Amino acid sequence: MMLPLIIAIVYRERCGLWFLIIGLLSLLAGFLITRKRPENMVFSMREGCIVTALSWLLISLVGCLPFFFSGQIPNFPNALFETVSGFTTTGASILENVEALAKCMLFWRSFTHWIGGMGVLVFLMAVIRMTGGSNMNLMRAESTGPSVGKMVPKAMRSARILYFTYIGLTVIMIVFLLAGHMTFYEAINTACSTAGTGGFAVKNSSMADYSAYIQWVVTVFMVAFGVNFNMFYLLLLRRWRQARHMEEVWVYIGIIIVAVAAVMINLYDVALTFGDNLRTVSFQVATIISTTGFTTVDFDKWPELSRLILVLLMFIGSCAGSTGGGMKVSRVIIMFKSMIREFGSYLFPKRVKAIKVGGKAVEPEVVRGVYVFLAAYICIFVVSMICLSFEGHDMVTNFSAVAASINNTGPGLGMVGPSENYVFFAGFNKFVLMFDMIAGRLELFPLLMLIYPPTWKGFFKNTNRRIE
Amino acid sequence: MMLPLIIAIVYRERCGLWFLIIGLLSLLAGFLITRKRPENMVFSMREGCIVTALSWLLISLVGCLPFFFSGQIPNFPNALFETVSGFTTTGASILENVEALAKCMLFWRSFTHWIGGMGVLVFLMAVIRMTGGSNMNLMRAESTGPSVGKMVPKAMRSARILYFTYIGLTVIMIVFLLAGHMTFYEAINTACSTAGTGGFAVKNSSMADYSAYIQWVVTVFMVAFGVNFNMFYLLLLRRWRQARHMEEVWVYIGIIIVAVAAVMINLYDVALTFGDNLRTVSFQVATIISTTGFTTVDFDKWPELSRLILVLLMFIGSCAGSTGGGMKVSRVIIMFKSMIREFGSYLFPKRVKAIKVGGKAVEPEVVRGVYVFLAAYICIFVVSMICLSFEGHDMVTNFSAVAASINNTGPGLGMVGPSENYVFFAGFNKFVLMFDMIAGRLELFPLLMLIYPPTWKGFFKNTNRRIE
Repeated sequence: MMLPLIIAIVYRERCGLWFLIIGLLSLLAGFLITRKRPENMVFSMREGCIVTALSWLLISLVGCLPFFFSGQIPNFPNALFETVSGFTTTGASILENVEALAKCMLFWRSFTHWIGGMGVLVFLMAVIRMTGGSNMNLMRAESTGPSVGKMVPKAMRSARILYFTYIGLTVIMIVFLLAGHMTFYEAINTACSTAGTGGFAVKNSSMADYSAYIQWVVTVFMVAFGVNFNMFYLLLLRRWRQARHMEEVWVYIGIIIVAVAAVMINLYDVALTFGDNLRTVSFQVATIISTTGFTTVDFDKWPELSRLILVLLMFIGSCAGSTGGGMKVSRVIIMFKSMIREFGSYLFPKRVKAIKVGGKAVEPEVVRGVYVFLAAYICIFVVSMICLSFEGHDMVTNFSAVAASINNTGPGLGMVGPSENYVFFAGFNKFVLMFDMIAGRLELFPLLMLIYPPTWKGFFKNTNRRIE
Repeated sequence: MMLPLIIAIVYRERCGLWFLIIGLLSLLAGFLITRKRPENMVFSMREGCIVTALSWLLISLVGCLPFFFSGQIPNFPNALFETVSGFTTTGASILENVEALAKCMLFWRSFTHWIGGMGVLVFLMAVIRMTGGSNMNLMRAESTGPSVGKMVPKAMRSARILYFTYIGLTVIMIVFLLAGHMTFYEAINTACSTAGTGGFAVKNSSMADYSAYIQWVVTVFMVAFGVNFNMFYLLLLRRWRQARHMEEVWVYIGIIIVAVAAVMINLYDVALTFGDNLRTVSFQVATIISTTGFTTVDFDKWPELSRLILVLLMFIGSCAGSTGGGMKVSRVIIMFKSMIREFGSYLFPKRVKAIKVGGKAVEPEVVRGVYVFLAAYICIFVVSMICLSFEGHDMVTNFSAVAASINNTGPGLGMVGPSENYVFFAGFNKFVLMFDMIAGRLELFPLLMLIYPPTWKGFFKNTNRRIE
């Protein structure tokens, strides 16, 4: 919280004091908690899940305090919603007038994206330096997608490489934005929001008022932050052959190209030059598939086919191992391939082949995991839809609000479209959507664990006794 | 086609002649085709699928000819749509004024439901008497749901029992309807439509103008025809213990009770007595979950929560082994249980239990089959939605049109709501919806086989040579 404090000092904003107070208090609390060293440093899967889920809840609770106490977002559920939306890199906002906020608050808002983007725990892990085995379970709970790939044997080193790639890309993006004559403050904000694939902007018009150059830069970086970070690692090390085998990334890029082409054809009659059309469509497609949520036009007013394509992209989402959300391209690939394989096995029962992604066979447990993910996803989706329907908004609004939350996208269609916001939802449903955001961000399971009764069975009894 | 001919003679309708002509021609064609006995009487899975899918296409093509030639439905795609909708027991209609049709045509329309309901091939199997092994593959392709259960070892006997239960229930229903002072003609029509869980009615107002007694009778029988037919078999043989273990049926009834209660509470402010409210809600819930499609009110005007519940029921559908459509209750149970099991295995990796449904362990292949079904279902759904979006209708209309077709329900929401019809769709999209109906009816795979290229690889070459 020291960074927004600096911004506050630079812009002489008094509300920045709250960052100092809350920052010092949480530093104190953290110091007190970590004083007592645990006897057993090894995490079980269960503890890993619980710690992950609880720390997201905790960081959101602490993170929303500056908004609330400073009176910039006087309603507590709203302040919490904005912060959860920030840390989960969703970008769904309850603010009707973003520009009314103090600059330090806006920066904190974008910065939550940046922190959330990398995953709070990968972040903490690199800083706090815990010992060996415990990281693996946390990583499994935190890392996006079915498997991050064992690119570096040690989790610590892996975390640091991800971390440096992330910082590096953010800095490069800031440089590119500055080259487009963006102010330094706006460049940092935009880069933080893009890096976390979040989507909080500092202007009410999101990215619409910026130059074509800035929009292209943001488009390219949105796509880049949706790419599996292993890819950058492989490219940096010039391992071309392995990079060529990153099937997920190529499918991801393929989907983007097809979607851009389809939407452009669908929007053909709109009076725009080819270049403008390409830029606008690429921007919206990139913002949705990377689940960022910046916008330059109100795509809710697009024809039906284009809207549907955007909704589908929302569900597909970005690559596993990126900062983006959604179901992840790799899951879609595995589902599709296992379906085709099943066809083959009906026809020729003796010739059953394993599913291959990127040249490597996918283990049956991974395939099962993908399907169970799908089932859990549908369950959460349906329950959330039922909760939202109590309010009586139309089906498209409810559907896209849940989709935009659980996929960490941000803007949806209808009443939660790009030019609207989420403030009209009742308090209870804001909590439902917050649950969806965190569930989506943590790949569903850690948060579901929290509400699954057997998780807690005998948990408090033998925490200290059990060695697994 | 002799039955509608009789109706035509009774009501002295000249257009009934077409049933005679087309009936005789198809009899002749069928006689010619079966003259040449195949050398190899054993079906492979591949041939089973192809035969099943092709016979549905063929029977629909022949079945629509009376509508078309008599000029009662002068547009060929419309006539075909109506017939496919009939044989697949969907009940989606393109007719704006049902009552304008001749009585024999209306009967043929309801009767296609009755034929389709039991499955054209189970029907044919009981009549044509083919030899042993070949039936099993056809049954696998045709029977609804993940597994019919080996209740009777021989497929022939099994088919006959299903067949007699079906006829018996239809006759009982006719008796009950006649007791409510329905005309004999209307009673037969209504019973045929209900038995097939189809939903074609002889009145424009569907079931709204009938007495409360008739509506209750239809409600009860709609629910009954959505029950796994094994249940009736077990009840007839007084095997109470086994009947108690039909978990699927109890879940099905539980879902109905919960849905009725929820919708009734949601509709509370509507000025109706408790009894009227209960009847109306029960009727709509029963019509949707059994995927019949009769209606007594325009549920598209209901509040959002109730509409959503109905859409969810549409997807769940009826029990496996019934005449209803949808994803089937047993699939939903298996998905849900496998998800819970997966949670357990994350927490306690050593204690992995098999999934049990109705006290019996479910084989992993069945679970995998359910998930592959889900994936294929989503694929077809998405592709259909994309096709429909080209027309630019709103998302709820497209979504519910596809849902109502693939689940064989009939009425949807928005422009395909209970008081509307499907006539406005372009010809191409009518074929898309027909594809969905047949795909849904045949549990997706046989029809997908037809469009899966490897199915045809070398098919014509070694049909006569291969013995599997």
